[in-house]
Amino acid sequence: MVYAGWGDPTRRAGLPPHALAWLHREIGSGPARPAAASVSVPPSRLDLPGAHTDDEVRARFATGSSYLDLLALRSGSVDAPDGVVSPADAADVAALLRDCSSRGIAVVPYGGGTSVVGGVSPLRGSFSSVIALDLSRLDQLLDVDEESLTATFQPGVRGPEAERLLNARGLTLGHFPQSYEYATIGGFAATRSSGQASTGYGRFDELVLGVVVQTPAGELRLGRGAASAAGPDLRALVVGSEGVFGVITEVTVRVRRVPEVKRYEGFFFRSFAEGVAALRAMEQAGVAPDVARLSDPDETRVQLALSGASRTQRAYLRARRASCFAVFGWEGTTVTARRKASLSVVEGALSVGTSAGEKWAHGRYDGPYLRDDLLDAGVLVETLETSARWSSLLRTHGSVRSALAGALPGAVVMCHVSHLYPQGASLYFTVLGRQSDDPVGQWTAAKRAASDAIVGSGATITHHHAVGTDLRDWMTAEIGPLGVEVLRSVKALLDPAGILNPGKLIP
Amino acid sequence: MVYAGWGDPTRRAGLPPHALAWLHREIGSGPARPAAASVSVPPSRLDLPGAHTDDEVRARFATGSSYLDLLALRSGSVDAPDGVVSPADAADVAALLRDCSSRGIAVVPYGGGTSVVGGVSPLRGSFSSVIALDLSRLDQLLDVDEESLTATFQPGVRGPEAERLLNARGLTLGHFPQSYEYATIGGFAATRSSGQASTGYGRFDELVLGVVVQTPAGELRLGRGAASAAGPDLRALVVGSEGVFGVITEVTVRVRRVPEVKRYEGFFFRSFAEGVAALRAMEQAGVAPDVARLSDPDETRVQLALSGASRTQRAYLRARRASCFAVFGWEGTTVTARRKASLSVVEGALSVGTSAGEKWAHGRYDGPYLRDDLLDAGVLVETLETSARWSSLLRTHGSVRSALAGALPGAVVMCHVSHLYPQGASLYFTVLGRQSDDPVGQWTAAKRAASDAIVGSGATITHHHAVGTDLRDWMTAEIGPLGVEVLRSVKALLDPAGILNPGKLIP
Repeated sequence: MVYAGWGDPTRRAGLPPHALAWLHREIGSGPARPAAASVSVPPSRLDLPGAHTDDEVRARFATGSSYLDLLALRSGSVDAPDGVVSPADAADVAALLRDCSSRGIAVVPYGGGTSVVGGVSPLRGSFSSVIALDLSRLDQLLDVDEESLTATFQPGVRGPEAERLLNARGLTLGHFPQSYEYATIGGFAATRSSGQASTGYGRFDELVLGVVVQTPAGELRLGRGAASAAGPDLRALVVGSEGVFGVITEVTVRVRRVPEVKRYEGFFFRSFAEGVAALRAMEQAGVAPDVARLSDPDETRVQLALSGASRTQRAYLRARRASCFAVFGWEGTTVTARRKASLSVVEGALSVGTSAGEKWAHGRYDGPYLRDDLLDAGVLVETLETSARWSSLLRTHGSVRSALAGALPGAVVMCHVSHLYPQGASLYFTVLGRQSDDPVGQWTAAKRAASDAIVGSGATITHHHAVGTDLRDWMTAEIGPLGVEVLRSVKALLDPAGILNPGKLIP
Repeated sequence: MVYAGWGDPTRRAGLPPHALAWLHREIGSGPARPAAASVSVPPSRLDLPGAHTDDEVRARFATGSSYLDLLALRSGSVDAPDGVVSPADAADVAALLRDCSSRGIAVVPYGGGTSVVGGVSPLRGSFSSVIALDLSRLDQLLDVDEESLTATFQPGVRGPEAERLLNARGLTLGHFPQSYEYATIGGFAATRSSGQASTGYGRFDELVLGVVVQTPAGELRLGRGAASAAGPDLRALVVGSEGVFGVITEVTVRVRRVPEVKRYEGFFFRSFAEGVAALRAMEQAGVAPDVARLSDPDETRVQLALSGASRTQRAYLRARRASCFAVFGWEGTTVTARRKASLSVVEGALSVGTSAGEKWAHGRYDGPYLRDDLLDAGVLVETLETSARWSSLLRTHGSVRSALAGALPGAVVMCHVSHLYPQGASLYFTVLGRQSDDPVGQWTAAKRAASDAIVGSGATITHHHAVGTDLRDWMTAEIGPLGVEVLRSVKALLDPAGILNPGKLIP
């Protein structure tokens, strides 16, 4: 039996009555849509010794974790790889790539399976079969250099295991995306992931100091010294390559000492613009918190509704015109001084204390569970994201909201700002709507409208979800036709047979 | 008349008697070697309308600024480009590249001409003629976004002009390499330059937010939003590409507000290891100064000798076992607090006050003038650099010192650490020796020994000088044979005729 939802089903809380009532009022009632009892996959067409080809294994590697993936799984029938291969080490990976190149078998590198952009869809391209290359056996911490604060991991190590191994030596990676509990080090690198504390700890692409990749054309081993001017930084070609050039088999990352103190605190601002100005002021003054998230009025309203805030709490916030909720988190040894420095450059922040911040921290990985509950209730629920420069952030916010609202009448469109940079920040949108009779077509059209709005406003098509299949058609807008040709020329060299992740990333 | 030296000859101070005496004692006396009175160049073989082909203009674009370049210029006879073309804008650059591609003329993009690795040598590759593509007319600040703290420059803007334009709006780039007075924005990007305050302001590759490049195959326009996960970061293919893929015609950089206060202070440590430990402690605790430089005992000794330190000063330092000089510089609004935070994690730092720091700051761009004086005195004088992780920094330091000392008996080999990162730092070596009868062969052999020692120790072949012609043969060690093939495949796409900087960067 393959479970058509996120993670550990026993952690699902179910929607409380007040949340169901709110959904009914806000987006209208649709029929409940329970997941099918089982998931069937087409027969395997694979001829490859050593591959697992039984249906249940193949079904487990059939999809990522996007709304479209979940709709497919819940329907009870999905396409799946024709086999799953679990190499034991980098040499195995290299041999497998050579073998699949000569046999003409497509290969989908598979880490945590948490892609929300179709990054692990079992596309065959021009080949008759496809395998999932399961990286779960490459699960070792290979080296720690405590003096240089680096650690070298194999790609299949999941977030919590990486932290456990590092914490035992007083170190942390500090990379905590929402997918943290299942996503892997290799996936973080292949997709340029960004964690919830990236404002303080950096994006994953900034954390990668070295990388080893197996490609059908051979091995790339990159990253010498502490920083280099030896030509173009080829690590940046590997990081973000989403498995189309090769399979990452080692990642050397920057690590930090485990913070002694973590303080997460809730705040309210009177308007989104005021909150954005506060984020910008802190970041540009070099005194931003490590975690900085600001919800727009709609996200704030929905959070208050779903969390069951009391009448007294609401009245308190209304009286203070508190419309936008924010969480700021400081980690380290000088948290009190840093908090003071952050708030010294901010106007209009109303603290509601650490309990609101702790509540966010406690539930920071629970979003995907809530999504499963919402899907059961027949709700359209999905997220998408971008980043923009400060000078166009509010314009991009408005433009994407309009696009989504236009494509999904009656839906609730929410957004938060997170991941701060001196030059701008990310915008993370969540949509709740009523599923139509054609939920795939409904969301595909909405996401297209949002993506067009994003590139039309000069923002990037993705800040941290990566491209996969879902955003592939916007890559030409993102990097231009010649940029796409550059990716093609590198792929032609490294993967001449074109077996690696056909249909992903490159239009 | 072409001047065979650095910058403005009226700024040369000449070597004072005590310095000449010290050189005589330390490395022995050689004959004075004045520069030839004039520089001759071979006749032009160019057939290209609009190109300047007179000898004096060509001689001015004949070389960069390495020791080998200066030896050639001082000999009175150098190879030179067959012509110089000065396009007015990006469209001109694009048209010129198409024209040279069809005519089979090699093109050397030329900014400030400050390369010390043969980056602007007029190599023809398989072509019969070569032009220097002079970028000095692309000298505009195109845009400033004060809200997002970005500025967009054309490539030919020199360091001081960029600062003047930004300072007028209260902004700074904060990029001050030793070549700052002549080097250009385009050159900084093409070579992954690193300024003396890079510990605080970042390397130039970190400052590039967007870039526009003209290639023979068309234009690349890269860098959307504030940060992106849209596939590999192709900006990193352009930054550091040293003119072999295309000509950078726009660079959008991160800028900062002009610091209110700058405090440069001199310190001494009792040993190099103690000083390195201090640098590492500050950087890894996140409290490093913006400028952090630590000289090893030999560099300290030579600095004291050449600066004419008094007997009292020397006695004071000896009594305190002060063997390694350091300059720490803090810039911004909270200099006092930051200085305190920096020094709180450091052991054994002996402050000698701000006058020593100010003296360094005052002379920070004077090294190349001193070099001309030393060349007149027949001294072999050159620098080379690398970066290493903290855990191997002292080993790399020892290994490169040994290689240089072995190749240049009797020479003085000095080094400083600068450009700090949480994972390591750069090592910058300066060599003073007595020129042999074959100074080119002498230095070529010494640099080869040093470069072999660098890659042998796991460090990078260059931290901020770039590769050019001089380090090209070590690129295979740096990025592996497949990495070199990646560069070749990108070049084949973007510059199919191979006209751009033949013989540079790619082995």
